[in-house]
Parts: sequence; structure tokens; C-alpha cells
Amino acid sequence: MANINYQQLTRTFQRLSRFSHLSSIAGWDMAAMMPPGGSQARGEALAELGVLQHQILTDKNVANGLEAAQQENLSDDERANLNEMARAYHQAALLPESLVEAKSLAGSRCEHAWRTQRKNNDWQGFAPNLKEVVRLSREEANIRAEASGGSRYDALLDLYEPGMTSSRLDVLFADLKSWLPDLLQTVVDKQASRKLINPQGPFPTEAQRQLGLETMTLLGFDFNGGRLDVSTHPFCGGVPEDVRITTRYDENDLLSALFGVIHETGHARYEQNLPRQWAGQPIAHARSMGVHESQSLFFEMQLGRSAAFLKHLLPKIQQHFGSQPAFSLDNFIAWSQTVERGFIRVDADEVSYPAHVILRYEIERALIDGQIEVDDIPALWDEKMQQYLGLSTEGNYRNGCMQDIHWTDGGFGYFPSYTLGAMYAAQLFQAARKALPDLDQNLNDGNFSPLFGWLQQNVWQHGSRFSTSELITHATGEDLNSRYFREHLTARYL
Amino acid sequence: MANINYQQLTRTFQRLSRFSHLSSIAGWDMAAMMPPGGSQARGEALAELGVLQHQILTDKNVANGLEAAQQENLSDDERANLNEMARAYHQAALLPESLVEAKSLAGSRCEHAWRTQRKNNDWQGFAPNLKEVVRLSREEANIRAEASGGSRYDALLDLYEPGMTSSRLDVLFADLKSWLPDLLQTVVDKQASRKLINPQGPFPTEAQRQLGLETMTLLGFDFNGGRLDVSTHPFCGGVPEDVRITTRYDENDLLSALFGVIHETGHARYEQNLPRQWAGQPIAHARSMGVHESQSLFFEMQLGRSAAFLKHLLPKIQQHFGSQPAFSLDNFIAWSQTVERGFIRVDADEVSYPAHVILRYEIERALIDGQIEVDDIPALWDEKMQQYLGLSTEGNYRNGCMQDIHWTDGGFGYFPSYTLGAMYAAQLFQAARKALPDLDQNLNDGNFSPLFGWLQQNVWQHGSRFSTSELITHATGEDLNSRYFREHLTARYL
Ligand SMILES: [Zn+2]
Ligand SMILES: [Zn+2]
Repeated sequence: MANINYQQLTRTFQRLSRFSHLSSIAGWDMAAMMPPGGSQARGEALAELGVLQHQILTDKNVANGLEAAQQENLSDDERANLNEMARAYHQAALLPESLVEAKSLAGSRCEHAWRTQRKNNDWQGFAPNLKEVVRLSREEANIRAEASGGSRYDALLDLYEPGMTSSRLDVLFADLKSWLPDLLQTVVDKQASRKLINPQGPFPTEAQRQLGLETMTLLGFDFNGGRLDVSTHPFCGGVPEDVRITTRYDENDLLSALFGVIHETGHARYEQNLPRQWAGQPIAHARSMGVHESQSLFFEMQLGRSAAFLKHLLPKIQQHFGSQPAFSLDNFIAWSQTVERGFIRVDADEVSYPAHVILRYEIERALIDGQIEVDDIPALWDEKMQQYLGLSTEGNYRNGCMQDIHWTDGGFGYFPSYTLGAMYAAQLFQAARKALPDLDQNLNDGNFSPLFGWLQQNVWQHGSRFSTSELITHATGEDLNSRYFREHLTARYL
Repeated sequence: MANINYQQLTRTFQRLSRFSHLSSIAGWDMAAMMPPGGSQARGEALAELGVLQHQILTDKNVANGLEAAQQENLSDDERANLNEMARAYHQAALLPESLVEAKSLAGSRCEHAWRTQRKNNDWQGFAPNLKEVVRLSREEANIRAEASGGSRYDALLDLYEPGMTSSRLDVLFADLKSWLPDLLQTVVDKQASRKLINPQGPFPTEAQRQLGLETMTLLGFDFNGGRLDVSTHPFCGGVPEDVRITTRYDENDLLSALFGVIHETGHARYEQNLPRQWAGQPIAHARSMGVHESQSLFFEMQLGRSAAFLKHLLPKIQQHFGSQPAFSLDNFIAWSQTVERGFIRVDADEVSYPAHVILRYEIERALIDGQIEVDDIPALWDEKMQQYLGLSTEGNYRNGCMQDIHWTDGGFGYFPSYTLGAMYAAQLFQAARKALPDLDQNLNDGNFSPLFGWLQQNVWQHGSRFSTSELITHATGEDLNSRYFREHLTARYL
């Protein structure tokens, strides 16, 4: 066989993928099903499997195979797969095991304590744990940066958004910062004059769940290969053949769970439609965190909060919760498109969301690159919240710099994915509209399949065959351009 | 360290136990949660982990360690643990991998086809698959029998009920056969004159589920370390720290799910109370399938269908389903203790159940030992059903020899566990009654904890420290004696 080394590697990665299947399902179970008493044994079992996966991936045979396979006669897809294998290998092999272990330990400790400390607004208790996590993340960033030749922060950013750099982010975010604050102010002023009727709850959990399931069906979720369940922190987990999304219900709040479900359905359809012929290989994985988020935001924001979609969603809501004045179409659309400055990122609308992300990006980059220390965070947070959103978080750690889980276990470099996703989503939607002349008519008629077909053609089926830049360029005719996001916000909110 | 080899072995078995944790949870998920589309990927992932576990367990280091550890200075418990390790090793190492694989493949194929064939009463389609499973099971039995020096059937029996032999079973079952048919006839005749009022459904699923949860609480199930869910074939799965029991609901049938839950709660409490200080080691496992079934039948039959327990169960039923004539205490007890000859083992009452098991035992033993062939099964089945239960299954494969899943994937040697369990349970209950002078008064008052405390002391906490024979003798003062089962049936039904 001409590509014997490559073939051997595909078997190793398929084996790894099967083990990942089990840890994904066990991880989902941990969040959605497991009683508290199972926690320690589950943690140990998952850690044992993690050690095994790390050993298999960083084995000398893999290193040798990767080198030898470079010389083999491979198709373009095989070569792309090989590159993704090499990427996974280097990511795992770069760090000494002692650092991986120390980071995992410090992260667990910090995250676990944070769950209580956040409630208690206890920055003094939190800071020492976070310092340890930052120390180890800097160590990791150092090692990765030495290998890549880039900056320390970029080395972490690359874990989530391969190919992205902070110099490119600076340009993109500078652009956002130049027009978004004004736009936000204008929208808030404009909405201040609306006479909005608030829907009256309660909205019983079981009816919300039924509505969620129907909405998933409307959005093409394949229930033969997935489920909807409940967890404290909603997510999309499982495996492409069996995607598990979760939400949480608040009987006084109809939109939160519903748009959460729509968001996770976007993630889920991406997973369910990754190239099945490559199942088990790295090329079959989603391209990046930013592209993943682009799909969820495509569903939640581009499509989900459009007037056309809301028009088809409303009758389902009325079916479950009856009629009330708030459920006039105009009021419902206005209500679903409400823009408000707030403290909490996860509750933010699409106009104010980027401010939350840029703030975190600027702080975490400075933190990893060593320009600031953990003790500087609260003041910087307050300063930037004042500047970007006009809100003070002085002394309010709970709803300020302690609100997110990401930093507690060292997830530095992740936050930009959210706003990259929002920008990709806007650009993709505009490209779909160009490619499909009847799109707006179709959406208005409740026929969403052409749009999903376009995503399938241009994003989902490609997995990791292309770089993000190539993927976006193929799909939209140009590399990422924040202009489409601006145009989308302007069209919807002004 | 004086016992360095033993220590090394404990680490290996702990690692194996962590992997088993993941396959248990993934197996539970497969039965209770997984959508059909996840089936293939899940099967592959579990098989991959199974191969790994087999490799770890049969590694030369384990063999060498087991030999070397024999010479080490071990406590009694450590030595018992070492014996269980050796047992696990030899069970796994005896079979060539090709046979393990062929058996697993033939079993999956036979079981999968059986699900449809049973519905269609298709013995002609089923027989060839079963022949292949039998051929491979005989091969396995041959290899195991050569190693153990016993008979081929005994070698399989020993997998489920270590220490039990068919010559001992023959004595036990001959005794049952000498008095049970008469007893059954007498009970059926006696019950024929009852004027039973049948409860009127429907009994909504959600109310049945609540009733099940409350009954589990009454029976001491620890919800901090376990759950109740739904699956087509009820079972008790998960891990001791997180026990997952399942049931299935029929809105027209109140007792089926309820007593299923009580049964599985017996299995679950055994698992939840296995010696936690030995977690991850073979000594912490349940002693045998027979002992496991003794606990479920202790809960379901000895306790669950006693008048004392039913008296405390009835108010809960009335709370969920209101009052009706069938819910007078006398009628409810009589109804819960109904004895009827039927075709289906899993629906059988405790008086007719042993006939189902003895029939299967006699057929599977002859099959494995080579005295009969697969083609002989239907006629033999019919003959024995006529003889033991007075029912003809001629041409009725669906409700005859094709009703059970066990043989489809080669589970020969398992069936005796059910009736061993029933006999152990009766003997244990009698011993508890002797040890606890206030037991009947306690049960009558709804105070079940002394009884559970006795099981904890005498069965649960010992895991696999003792052989089954030792365990039963310690707990009851004598080895297994079918007398107690007879006395129990006589006292309850005559
Ligand atoms: Zn998301
Ligand atoms: Zn059972």
C-alpha cells in the first residue's frame, strides 16, 4: 500500500474517536443525568480515559507515522486530515504531563470554589485560585508560543480558532469599537419610545419543553440522532451520530429557554451534518469554535430573531400558552428584538454582546502576555464596562469579572470565538441571500430548507477540510469582513 | 513493600474498574436514553473499550503478578481480593481472542435478528443463528471445562454462580420437582374460588413513576447515588456510586411496573451497599448472579408481596389513583399474590417460576453437553411445559423457546441463578426473622430498617469476601437448603 503510515494513523485516530465518544456521553450524563453521589467516581473514570487518550495520541509511533506519512501519496482530503492529525498531536505532545496535570488540578479547584465564591461576591477568595490558573496558563502559553513563534496569547487563541491572531482581532475589534457604541446608543434610544407589552407567565416547564421540541423539528434537528434534555449550563454535547443538547427552564421566562434551544440546535445541526464518510477522523470535526458559534448564532440571531421566523414561531407559542396581548405579532417581534445594556454576557442581545467579548479579550490578552496581573482585573473590568456599556461594576464581582466560568479552568483565548461567530454568521447569511434569490420569500413562507441546504453545502459538509479562512472565502467570496455584521444590525435595529 | 506485586495488581484492577464505569454508564444510556441513530457508533465505541479491557486484563504482567502475589504477605481480605483477580484473569485469558470475537459477533447477529423473528414466530429463521451461537458456546465450554476439570455445562454455570455445579443443582431441582407441581396445583385450585376484583385503569405513567419513586424511598434507595428511568427491558445498571434502575410502564397494568421497581431496588441496594472501602477492586463486586437475584427477590417477593408490606404500599397507591373497590386491603393482597400458570417466564409468579427455570436448565445443560441439538429444542420445550405447567407450546415459538434473550447471545448457564436466588432469599428471610425477634412486628409497623440493616450486615457489606456457600452459611447457619423456599410458599399460599 502506498500510504501505509497514513492508514495506520487513521486507525489510531479512529480508536481515539471511539474513546472520545464514551467520554462525550459520560460528560453529557454528568451534566444532565448524574446524581451528585456519582461525581467522584465519574471524575476518576474520565481522568483515567483522558490519560489513556493522551498516551495514545502522543505515542512515538504517532510522531513517526506523521513524519513518514508526509511523504506518502495522499489525496487533498487525506492531506487535510493528516494536517489535522498533526495539529492534534502537537497540541497534546507539546506540554509536559506534569503541566497538564497541574493545570487540570488547579482548574478544577478554582472552578469548584468559584461556584460558591461567585454567589458570595468573594473576589478575595477567588483571586489566589485564579492566580495559580493564570500562572500555569502562562506557562502553557510560553511553551506553545515558543513552538509556534507567535505571541503567547495567540498560541492559546489558536487552540480554539486555528489561524486567528490577535493582530487580526485587533483590527476587527477596532472596527467594531468605532461604530458599535453609537449604534447601541441609537438603538436603545429608539427602543425607549416603544410601548412594549410583556408576556405574562407562568409558562409551565412541560409546555416549554414541547415547544422546544417542536421548534427543533421546525429547524430540522434529527431526533433519530439526538435528544433534548436539561442541565444547569446549556450546551451541545454527545457525538455527531447522537447529539445531545440541553437547556434550562424558567417558568417566568419564555424566551430564555426557547432561544437557548434554537441556539443549541444550530450547534447540533452542524454536528449532525459533519462529513459522515470521514467519521472518526479529525477532518470530520467542526472547523473551529468560531465557526461552531457562527452556526448557533446563525440559528439564534440571523434566522431565529428575524421577523420571518418569529412569524412562524408565534402560532406554536400561542398553541401552548394561549393568546394574550403580548402575543400580537408586532409586539412579539419587538419583544424578541429588545436591546438592553446589562452586566451579564450570557443574557446580552446581539447588539451589546460584542462589547462583553472585546472587554474580556483585552483583559485576557494582557493577562496572558504579562502586561497586567490578576489583581488588576476588577479595576480594568469596571473601567471598560463604563467605557463600553456605561455600567459600573465597582465592588460587584459577581456580575462583573467573576460571572464567567471560562477563566476558572484556564480557558483563555476562547472568548473571541463568540464575536467571530456573530460576524461569520452575518456574512454567511448575506452570502446565502445572494446565492438564493428566493430566500426571503421562502423564509416568509416558512420554508427554511433552502437555507439549511445552503449551510450544508457551504459549511457543514466540509468539517475541517479547509482552514476557516478558506471555508469562509469559498462560502462568501471573501475573507471575514465585519461589514456584514454591521449591516445586519443596522437593518434589523435601526 | 512486602506485597509489591499485589499492590501493582490493585492499581491495574482499579484502572479496569474505571473503564468499566464508563462502559456501564454508556450501556445504561444505550438502553435508556440513546436514540436509534446512535447505535452503531456506540457499539463500536463499547467494543473498542472492551478490547482494551481484555488486553489489560490478560496482559502477561497480570499473569506474572498474580503468581508472584501468591507468595506475598496478605491479609484475609487481600487474599480474597487476589483470588477474585485470578478468577477474572483466568476467565478472560482462557479463550483465544478469535473465539471471543466470533462469539460476540454471532451473539449480536442472533440477538438482533431474534427481535424481529420472535415477533414473527419464526423458528426457521432463528434456528441457524442459534446453532452458530451454540457451536461457539460449546467451544468455549470445552476450553473452560478442560481447564477446570468439570463438565462443559458446569464451566459455563461457574461464570455466573461460582462454586455451583450441575450435580448440586440436580439435587436441589429434583427436590423442587418432587413437591412444587402439587403445591402449584393446590394453590391454583384454592385461588379459583376467590372473588377477586380487578383494579380499573388507566394508571397514568407519570403517577406510576411518582409511586415508583416513593416506593424506592420507602425501600431505602439512595437517590444521591442513583436514578429511576425507563427502558424496554428493565434492569439495574450503572456503578455502585451511581446505580441506574429502569422500568417500563403500561397504563393498564399497575402491578407490573411497581413490582419491577421493587425488584430492581433490591438489586440496587445491594450495589449501593457493596464495600465502598474496596471500591474498584474485584472483592467489592456482588458475590454472584444468584446472590444478586436473591436480593431483588428478597425485595420483590419475600418483603414486597408480604401482607405487612402491601398494607403500607396500598395508601400510596390510593393517594395516586384514588379509591376503588379493588383497593380494599384484602383484595389488594389477594390480587398481589395471584398464582397462575402461564407461558412467559418474566410474567410468572413465585410459585410457578421455578418450573420455567428448571425447564430451561435441563434443556441448556443437555444442549451444551451435546446430548441434544438446537433442532430438538421446540419438542423438548413443549414436552416439559406440558409436564411442569400443563401448557402446550406446540408451534408457539414466540411464547415458547424463543421468548428469552439469554440464549441468543450465548448466556448459557445463567437461568439457574433465578431460582437459586429465590431459594437464597427465602433462607435469608427466615434467618433474619430468627435473628430479629421483633421483625414481624417491625414490618407490620412499616419499620423496614432492621431488616435492611440485617441484609447490610450479612450480605451487602461482604461483596465477594466469601464464597457464596460461606456467605449463606455465615448468614443463615447452614448452606443452601430448599426447605425454606418450600416453607415460604406454603405459609404464603396455602
Ligand atoms: Zn454556542
Ligand atoms: Zn433481577
